[in-house]
Amino acid sequence: MDGEIDFAKMQGLVPAIVQDAATGKVLMLGFMNREAYERTLNAGYVTFFSRTRNQLWMKGETSGNRLKLLSATTDCDRDTLLLQVEVEGAGLVCHEGTRSCFTKTLGQDGRAETTAAEKAVQP
Amino acid sequence: MDGEIDFAKMQGLVPAIVQDAATGKVLMLGFMNREAYERTLNAGYVTFFSRTRNQLWMKGETSGNRLKLLSATTDCDRDTLLLQVEVEGAGLVCHEGTRSCFTKTLGQDGRAETTAAEKAVQP
Repeated sequence: MDGEIDFAKMQGLVPAIVQDAATGKVLMLGFMNREAYERTLNAGYVTFFSRTRNQLWMKGETSGNRLKLLSATTDCDRDTLLLQVEVEGAGLVCHEGTRSCFTKTLGQDGRAETTAAEKAVQP
Repeated sequence: MDGEIDFAKMQGLVPAIVQDAATGKVLMLGFMNREAYERTLNAGYVTFFSRTRNQLWMKGETSGNRLKLLSATTDCDRDTLLLQVEVEGAGLVCHEGTRSCFTKTLGQDGRAETTAAEKAVQP
């Protein structure tokens, strides 16, 4: 099994971290099943498996903000992916209109607050 | 429920991405249940929930490579965490002796190969 991604650990899915190759900013996390994973590597654009819709989903297919895959790595136990991408289109990965989905700062009380600076949509 | 982390989506767990605050390098991904999450925010050091051992696990507690939490964010649907950390001790997060766990480059055939440059352990 050397070299294979471990899809068994999480019932057929692995988490995939998406990082902007140019800035190092972590943009989002999605899940992939084997089909999404193979499609991503073959097509060169990131496709996830949507757990809520139970179907494959090419990120940005309708918005134009597709994630062009530049390189991919996996970790020591091969159950997580890290994807280096270039964001196409307007470069806004999050449906809330920001470059990254990680916009809500957590305080010590564990509650999330949206960061004002991240809310500004690029012109 | 505004401001709360969504632990329900994945049977009590959320993935937590660990990023080196100084370099932007993604170091690892672990899972947290609510107790691990609260302990992390309160103690200021990253504690995960180990799925294989079914128990809380403070990263680096025995090796000394603890992950000091500098800031934390969550994403638009509050089901993933992104942690900015400073690695203490020798700075080696992976049990394989590397700074990051993401050392295996994926080719278009989907197979993982360890990157030679990443194998070199710091002196």
